[in-house]
Amino acid sequence: MVLKDKLVLAYSGGLDTSVMVKWLGEKYGYDVITLTLDLGQREDIKEIERRALSIGSIKHYSIDAKEEFVKEYIFKAIKANALYQNKYPLGTALARPLIASKLVEIANKEGAKAVAHGCTGKGNDQVRFEVTIRALNPNLKIIAPVREWNMSRDEEINYALEKGIDIKPSKSQYSVDQNLWGRSIEGGDLEDPSLEPKEDVFEWVILPERASDKAEYVKIGFEKGLPFKLNDEEKGGVELIEELNVIAGRNGVGIIDHVEDRLVGIKSREVYEYPAALCLIEAHKELEKLVLSRSELNFKGLVEREWAWLVYSGLWIEPLMKDLQAFIDSTQAKVEGYITLKLYKGSMRIVARESKNSLYNYSLATYKEGSSFDQRDAEGFIKLWGLSSTLAYNRGV
Amino acid sequence: MVLKDKLVLAYSGGLDTSVMVKWLGEKYGYDVITLTLDLGQREDIKEIERRALSIGSIKHYSIDAKEEFVKEYIFKAIKANALYQNKYPLGTALARPLIASKLVEIANKEGAKAVAHGCTGKGNDQVRFEVTIRALNPNLKIIAPVREWNMSRDEEINYALEKGIDIKPSKSQYSVDQNLWGRSIEGGDLEDPSLEPKEDVFEWVILPERASDKAEYVKIGFEKGLPFKLNDEEKGGVELIEELNVIAGRNGVGIIDHVEDRLVGIKSREVYEYPAALCLIEAHKELEKLVLSRSELNFKGLVEREWAWLVYSGLWIEPLMKDLQAFIDSTQAKVEGYITLKLYKGSMRIVARESKNSLYNYSLATYKEGSSFDQRDAEGFIKLWGLSSTLAYNRGV
Amino acid sequence: MVLKDKLVLAYSGGLDTSVMVKWLGEKYGYDVITLTLDLGQREDIKEIERRALSIGSIKHYSIDAKEEFVKEYIFKAIKANALYQNKYPLGTALARPLIASKLVEIANKEGAKAVAHGCTGKGNDQVRFEVTIRALNPNLKIIAPVREWNMSRDEEINYALEKGIDIKPSKSQYSVDQNLWGRSIEGGDLEDPSLEPKEDVFEWVILPERASDKAEYVKIGFEKGLPFKLNDEEKGGVELIEELNVIAGRNGVGIIDHVEDRLVGIKSREVYEYPAALCLIEAHKELEKLVLSRSELNFKGLVEREWAWLVYSGLWIEPLMKDLQAFIDSTQAKVEGYITLKLYKGSMRIVARESKNSLYNYSLATYKEGSSFDQRDAEGFIKLWGLSSTLAYNRGV
Amino acid sequence: MVLKDKLVLAYSGGLDTSVMVKWLGEKYGYDVITLTLDLGQREDIKEIERRALSIGSIKHYSIDAKEEFVKEYIFKAIKANALYQNKYPLGTALARPLIASKLVEIANKEGAKAVAHGCTGKGNDQVRFEVTIRALNPNLKIIAPVREWNMSRDEEINYALEKGIDIKPSKSQYSVDQNLWGRSIEGGDLEDPSLEPKEDVFEWVILPERASDKAEYVKIGFEKGLPFKLNDEEKGGVELIEELNVIAGRNGVGIIDHVEDRLVGIKSREVYEYPAALCLIEAHKELEKLVLSRSELNFKGLVEREWAWLVYSGLWIEPLMKDLQAFIDSTQAKVEGYITLKLYKGSMRIVARESKNSLYNYSLATYKEGSSFDQRDAEGFIKLWGLSSTLAYNRGV
Repeated sequence: MVLKDKLVLAYSGGLDTSVMVKWLGEKYGYDVITLTLDLGQREDIKEIERRALSIGSIKHYSIDAKEEFVKEYIFKAIKANALYQNKYPLGTALARPLIASKLVEIANKEGAKAVAHGCTGKGNDQVRFEVTIRALNPNLKIIAPVREWNMSRDEEINYALEKGIDIKPSKSQYSVDQNLWGRSIEGGDLEDPSLEPKEDVFEWVILPERASDKAEYVKIGFEKGLPFKLNDEEKGGVELIEELNVIAGRNGVGIIDHVEDRLVGIKSREVYEYPAALCLIEAHKELEKLVLSRSELNFKGLVEREWAWLVYSGLWIEPLMKDLQAFIDSTQAKVEGYITLKLYKGSMRIVARESKNSLYNYSLATYKEGSSFDQRDAEGFIKLWGLSSTLAYNRGV
Repeated sequence: MVLKDKLVLAYSGGLDTSVMVKWLGEKYGYDVITLTLDLGQREDIKEIERRALSIGSIKHYSIDAKEEFVKEYIFKAIKANALYQNKYPLGTALARPLIASKLVEIANKEGAKAVAHGCTGKGNDQVRFEVTIRALNPNLKIIAPVREWNMSRDEEINYALEKGIDIKPSKSQYSVDQNLWGRSIEGGDLEDPSLEPKEDVFEWVILPERASDKAEYVKIGFEKGLPFKLNDEEKGGVELIEELNVIAGRNGVGIIDHVEDRLVGIKSREVYEYPAALCLIEAHKELEKLVLSRSELNFKGLVEREWAWLVYSGLWIEPLMKDLQAFIDSTQAKVEGYITLKLYKGSMRIVARESKNSLYNYSLATYKEGSSFDQRDAEGFIKLWGLSSTLAYNRGV
Repeated sequence: MVLKDKLVLAYSGGLDTSVMVKWLGEKYGYDVITLTLDLGQREDIKEIERRALSIGSIKHYSIDAKEEFVKEYIFKAIKANALYQNKYPLGTALARPLIASKLVEIANKEGAKAVAHGCTGKGNDQVRFEVTIRALNPNLKIIAPVREWNMSRDEEINYALEKGIDIKPSKSQYSVDQNLWGRSIEGGDLEDPSLEPKEDVFEWVILPERASDKAEYVKIGFEKGLPFKLNDEEKGGVELIEELNVIAGRNGVGIIDHVEDRLVGIKSREVYEYPAALCLIEAHKELEKLVLSRSELNFKGLVEREWAWLVYSGLWIEPLMKDLQAFIDSTQAKVEGYITLKLYKGSMRIVARESKNSLYNYSLATYKEGSSFDQRDAEGFIKLWGLSSTLAYNRGV
Repeated sequence: MVLKDKLVLAYSGGLDTSVMVKWLGEKYGYDVITLTLDLGQREDIKEIERRALSIGSIKHYSIDAKEEFVKEYIFKAIKANALYQNKYPLGTALARPLIASKLVEIANKEGAKAVAHGCTGKGNDQVRFEVTIRALNPNLKIIAPVREWNMSRDEEINYALEKGIDIKPSKSQYSVDQNLWGRSIEGGDLEDPSLEPKEDVFEWVILPERASDKAEYVKIGFEKGLPFKLNDEEKGGVELIEELNVIAGRNGVGIIDHVEDRLVGIKSREVYEYPAALCLIEAHKELEKLVLSRSELNFKGLVEREWAWLVYSGLWIEPLMKDLQAFIDSTQAKVEGYITLKLYKGSMRIVARESKNSLYNYSLATYKEGSSFDQRDAEGFIKLWGLSSTLAYNRGV
């Protein structure tokens, strides 16, 4: 008997990757090992495992990676105020390098020759998977069946029926990816950017019109740039994010609807639900404005743009990431304090902030008597501040 | 009889500048000419004129500069998506160089030797006035009485009573500046950044809790980057902004509450009402995402930061402004189309967009069959996209 | 008789493209039309034409594009102080989009179905050609034989001999590309970055050791950012650059030796000769420092980086290019004056500069008595300049 | 007897600060303590001490701070490739915060109430001193006599003669500042930017015309971004820089002549001698190009600009400095290897580089057979690389 080579497949439990378990065996002759990470996607990991094995996976790994996801990925995103194109909190983008690193880990452990993923050839995720995999183990062959097989959705379903694959094709017209950090929805009617999303798009965030009639206040405590308290109660990261997802979601806060530039050069209309993420990033930014100097805030803005771009474009392993991280970590030492958000029917507003490291100085800022600011200093300042521009304005006249 | 030198004072009608009309005559011996611009501040310009003359102004100029303010200042800010520190739409900052240029114009016409303004020595406005004035006419003496006189508010009131100056000291604890583009509120309780603003702070924006129970949609049409239609009706700029201020305001949209870095090095807590501005900038950004390339969007982000900083910091006359403007204008030629916003109890969300210049390409973007995107191209792309990072990741290992 | 489809080949006259004339006919069945541009590459364009036709080109176009190259490409590079990675003046990169646009022009005129170029799959030039071609006419098929055929140099020579192709294989170990703007040398011993280039690498620049013992001064006059005078004599762009190449070259000035990041992710060791380019860019930069404000200089630095990157990476047709150009052109209106360079045995130093738009102001700058600068202004300036940093330095202490 | 307050003066031994020792006592009634740092300025520190005491200093501190200057200031500048406006290696700018911190240290130790420095009100150094002093001890009064006293040079000399102050007024027309890192020359004929500097300006660098007729090679070894070997011999930082100053200087390398924007808004013509600095920075940059990824190099360029600007503009204590430093240090871990420079009569060229962390990969880069680069990957790469630009180029057409 000839021993087959092994392949590790990132298995989500959905139609595409279920078909792949079979197809990779038939087309390439691999023994397929499946891997599913629990990243807080609110799915039944046990059931996914059962299904994988039923289709023909020779071995299945289920890994609860929520803690690692929060500590090594989401927390860095919070410190970086990471929003690609000022909108997208990068949930899927952050998860991909983590899944890729587990794929490589299992492949190395199992002596597998190849890994496979279920991404399309038109999106960003293929890049995020493959760049990380290739960096961590350049000898692994990478197979991306969707790029090769040219099966339509109907053909996939037929293939599944024919092969006796246990699938429950979603009745939804949308394509969804979700984890602890947020939920991305694409496809269906959303592909027409001139149409407002229907209510069935949303699962984590209630429509503002249906939210409570009373505003809800949330107070978030930060230490070294990271959230550790919710309404004065200490929480671990996973728990804090899960709870805040619920709180903001029930107040209609967390919907993003915009047009985004994918790495591969295509614009796409994206709808997201990121209740906790939007609250945490807004609160974190406000706290930074209280404790960082103007120069720090200004330059950190450039660092954040670059950080978000590298993550979005699949370059998690790019050495510049660690350099940017060193910068960011250096800024966060003093980012400590409390921010209060008011959530109400889809609106979110910061209403109060406190920090023992606050640079807000009442006695300097106040317009009342007794200010410690000597107004006469301004006169010389203004003259020299405007000198270069004024000279240049009148040059050659 | 000795002829006195003339001075032109930027006169707002408030306590400070009313006291100044007298003080400048007494302290410096000037004949004081007063100037008031109508920039859409919703005040009675005739009444301001009457008051100025009653206090002792030898001549008063009232200028309706709303059109000029919109065309030469606000429209540029829209094209630049101008938000200082990603928050402040720069209403006061945009008005100052316009007022300064009128001050110089009148001073030149009247043969005045000096100009004066009512700004404090702790804020940004003094810089914006003085840099512009000095660039336009370096020979004019600039007097900033508030920086010199060390009068408290009570002393000012006493001085006014003593000199028979007709004042109606505001009962509000806040210091307010407003024009067509927005309303800035400082002082009083707001100087404690840990307190939520009270309801009496707001005049243009209704509290979300009191707003209509029905969402309101607004459709904004843009041409060359500028708004020209509101809900399918063509409008001039002044009218469009005024109407949108009302519409957004009645839906609770337009409040900003944040901590800001003033140019002079102080952090201050700022509360703003900018209903139309926030809607127009958000809509304009979304339209740009539809019609500009990723590279244009990315670099324009840097240009916008710089534009906002120069305006905020009083350098309207800096030659770099015209260079940035040339860049921005070049990007705007194709920024044409319609954006629909949904406003509801304090929340604003873009729900639809259309443009004949749209770069969104359904046949490329769709996940359905029949896409014109060749997925096999992705394979080579990913390898080369990640090559430099991957090599570097493994360097020296 | 069946009519064959036509293809237009960018023909250099070298081994690769000579073999292609035959190979494209044999392999793909095209009628091959050849195109050669005179871009100042110091080769015999007539002889190239003769050779093309002798190999089997059915029609040859020779186009003198030197003027267009200077006006539409090189002059823009001067205004942009364009140096990729602060070193490479982009000669080859600038020529590629011009050649590509001529390829498309001839293809359209001839009704050709395809175009071909001689670039390798490891370099930047393929990108520059193909992106421009695809933007200008997406219907043209693009063939890059070198990427396909896997012929070694020896196999190419054998193929040529076998087919009776008239070639004069260069005896040089180096691969060279040159035009008016400069000369690039790769390959051979240069592929070892730890070896100093041998003397036979250089053709345009004499080794410093062999240069004249007397320093030579060159005075360059600029108008609107462009050179128009050499040593007080007016010159057209082509002539001025050609002469300056000779002058700087004979003084040993113009050699660049560095390690460069190619777009495709590879580092390569590049040796260049750019005598005129280095002088013109250095002089242009110095003149800008005299007439632009600090803010303009600072931001233009960012624009220049982006401009050089877009050109290097083949995105000449990216709309951002025209936006950056608008910025740059706006800065150049006042860039007028004279710069004197001293060239001596490989060294170049600016020794004098003059401009009627100079912002250098003796009476402000001088340390002698009679300065018009009021030193007391500095006191207030320093306090406010350092205020934010000082507060932040002591935060949380 | 009334005890006088103490003041610590940064004493250079020159005319200005010698006059100050007396003047500060007479005008302000202080007991003046003097402080002189040895920063490698090639002056007789003992003689300076003798002079200070002879004029009336009640106590003199001489501190050899060369090691600290190299480790805490110059080495950081090398890692940052620090060149303000791409030209000035910041020697004076780096020394000022060090001197300021020693002033504060001594003032604290002596219980002094004030410090004083000899800077003019038109330059950058006053800012560098005062911002640092104010951050380290806001209670110290800072006195800058030159800004106050309005004495011309002749009046200073008369004052000195009158008070019996032992001065040797320099016969040079230039104003010079020098330390280990370089030499700055201002004033005299140099204030006319259209005049070539005369030979008497230069002391550290021989004129190229008088340099040796034989080229000299220098090989510099780096570890973690810092130079530690010169021509294969290990050296401490101070020694290495001193020797390289001599080597480069004798080959005519190290002269900078440009127009610079001072912080206070004035342009000035600056001439510098920085032989070691220019060699070390050029070598360091080249080594970085060999071992850092393209993304790292690109972003580090922005960090370097900011670093140089903060140092130039006196904000050494700005917290952003430590953040930028964290970024830079993260990039330097792998910056290890050898760079060979060829110096010849004023020209400097890198001719060879080696590193065990080199990312230059011969088998990828070579144009010879056997390359490990798969050229077919390029095809897909080019299509997707150009897609966004191409779509945008044709938008709305």
